[in-house]
Amino acid sequence: MSRLEPRAGVLRMKEYHPPLGDRSGLRLDFNENTLACSPRVREALAAITGADLTRYPERGPIEAMVARHHGLHPDQVLLTNGVDEAIHVLCQTYLNPGDALLLPVPTYSMYEVYGSGAEARIDRVVAGHSFAFPLEELLAAITPQTRLIAIANPNSPTGQTVTREQILQVLTAAPHAAVLVDEAYFHFFGESVMDLVGQIPNLIVARTFSKAYGLAGLRLGMLAAAKEQMQWMRRVISPYSVNALALACLPPALEDQQYLDWYVGEVKAARLLMEAALDRLAVHRWPSAANFVLVRIGAQHRHFVQAMRDRDVLVRDRSSDPGCEGCVRITIGPREQTDAGILALEESLAEIGWKGKA
Amino acid sequence: MSRLEPRAGVLRMKEYHPPLGDRSGLRLDFNENTLACSPRVREALAAITGADLTRYPERGPIEAMVARHHGLHPDQVLLTNGVDEAIHVLCQTYLNPGDALLLPVPTYSMYEVYGSGAEARIDRVVAGHSFAFPLEELLAAITPQTRLIAIANPNSPTGQTVTREQILQVLTAAPHAAVLVDEAYFHFFGESVMDLVGQIPNLIVARTFSKAYGLAGLRLGMLAAAKEQMQWMRRVISPYSVNALALACLPPALEDQQYLDWYVGEVKAARLLMEAALDRLAVHRWPSAANFVLVRIGAQHRHFVQAMRDRDVLVRDRSSDPGCEGCVRITIGPREQTDAGILALEESLAEIGWKGKA
Repeated sequence: MSRLEPRAGVLRMKEYHPPLGDRSGLRLDFNENTLACSPRVREALAAITGADLTRYPERGPIEAMVARHHGLHPDQVLLTNGVDEAIHVLCQTYLNPGDALLLPVPTYSMYEVYGSGAEARIDRVVAGHSFAFPLEELLAAITPQTRLIAIANPNSPTGQTVTREQILQVLTAAPHAAVLVDEAYFHFFGESVMDLVGQIPNLIVARTFSKAYGLAGLRLGMLAAAKEQMQWMRRVISPYSVNALALACLPPALEDQQYLDWYVGEVKAARLLMEAALDRLAVHRWPSAANFVLVRIGAQHRHFVQAMRDRDVLVRDRSSDPGCEGCVRITIGPREQTDAGILALEESLAEIGWKGKA
Repeated sequence: MSRLEPRAGVLRMKEYHPPLGDRSGLRLDFNENTLACSPRVREALAAITGADLTRYPERGPIEAMVARHHGLHPDQVLLTNGVDEAIHVLCQTYLNPGDALLLPVPTYSMYEVYGSGAEARIDRVVAGHSFAFPLEELLAAITPQTRLIAIANPNSPTGQTVTREQILQVLTAAPHAAVLVDEAYFHFFGESVMDLVGQIPNLIVARTFSKAYGLAGLRLGMLAAAKEQMQWMRRVISPYSVNALALACLPPALEDQQYLDWYVGEVKAARLLMEAALDRLAVHRWPSAANFVLVRIGAQHRHFVQAMRDRDVLVRDRSSDPGCEGCVRITIGPREQTDAGILALEESLAEIGWKGKA
């Protein structure tokens, strides 16, 4: 008899190896909150008992509370083990082998990872040099095989945004496809289509608590959709995928609007500082509505990332993303950290002999 | 154009709705540790800072530590978001639509949930009245389409065990299939095939930290297999599926062998007390090597479960499991809790007019 082999789809699956390892220093590489979550979360953690940990988590009551917070019905909300699980669940719910996952690229890489795991065909529409949302090309790429379309708004790694009108056009043009609007960076942008959840049958909105809320370690994401679709995602997801401590920490994080507002305000102010520094140093950058800025360093991108690391500042080389040759993404945290980041930026550019726009 | 529908596999997927909701009272329904995890875990939690929570979790260092603890190489170990994710990953790694998942039943229901989600054919081999492992029938049911075989040892909900020799026969008879030996209840039994990991290419062992260790709320499971197979499972799993607090709590839980030994000793002593009470009350039971006992109540099983709940003791109706008509599963915790459980059992049997073996 033959030996054990994984299925062919796994052999073909795109691999994702985040450059974790030693991340000591200023972490401007993963778009996390770079400071801390609300202090109220720590208080909630301190109240956890050893007996609390022994019980299987119950997501229902917290899901209902999150739904209320977003003006939605509990039937319309699903908490997930980070947005990664949300994307995984969506791919499993809608993608048969050979179905098409339609993506404007560059974009968040996990769509393609989970799409390829489901043995879907990946249809990519490449954005132009400005990285503006390629609406016309995306609409033209919709086929009867299109079963999932993923739109990150704001997009990563570009920071670009999509208008509500553009999203509505996609939703209307592909009623047979699930349209994911991934609002992971919503808080730094301020515009959302969450209010359309339940009104448009094929709209699915994702949010994360890893970015503005500062809870990346807890793994907390959410999906919102009409209950007619949510029933299928709820069938696919494990009943216990969100852990009890994440569920315990979510209410205090959600309730501390003041802390969230403060952090978002810091990031927006710091983004202006970073943008001004990049302009002064003649580094090409793209406008960003998120907590990061994409810049073009050119051929020296690896040297630049290492020079930053030598100064204890981690940034993310995005050069292998479509259309991002020579690009590096810099996360924006609070102003004090950004000042330190700008200093390292100046020194690192000097080290690589920077002479202006690549 | 047509409307959005999930894929056909989701429509056919077996649903799993654990009876959570109000679980106040003595929780003898989910085979969790019913008391608490090691007090050292709480100390680790108290040391977590708000800044720790903001970082994406890094499983690598803890995975290496868990591997050492089990005498394995880090390449052979994968931490998972509970054993549920481990089963999900296995199904995704090995099962194409139409492949066969072979199960001795009754057994843990999530194998079938995730197998049906992968659109696998479920081949069931029904154990006899004793619920002894149906080795001959299982061997006879292996076909070239068999791609995954799941063996829970001890089994749930029956508490029955499989010998090392029987497992070796299955491994040898199906070299083309992944053979999962799910040792979730290992600590209450004491026998394992973990030492064979890496020596037998198609052996995959699962363990959980939800049962004896008392960390069900944290969602921590693990898979162990030869690295040639583990590379594929590592490709399928999300890099961040195990949350940072679970990773922080695992080392102190693993290191506190004294607490684990105490808890397991309590359960084994309490199991004897419960078995003696069941025999005295003439309730049919099956021998168990786990932290639960399966009993046959007969036609009054629903009434019995409700009578127990009226006395603030939760037990689990298993009547819909194959061959388990009229059966109820009772989790065994420490002795003091078991005394309370036995009192409720006596009263509940009296309430349903119990006259002896069903």
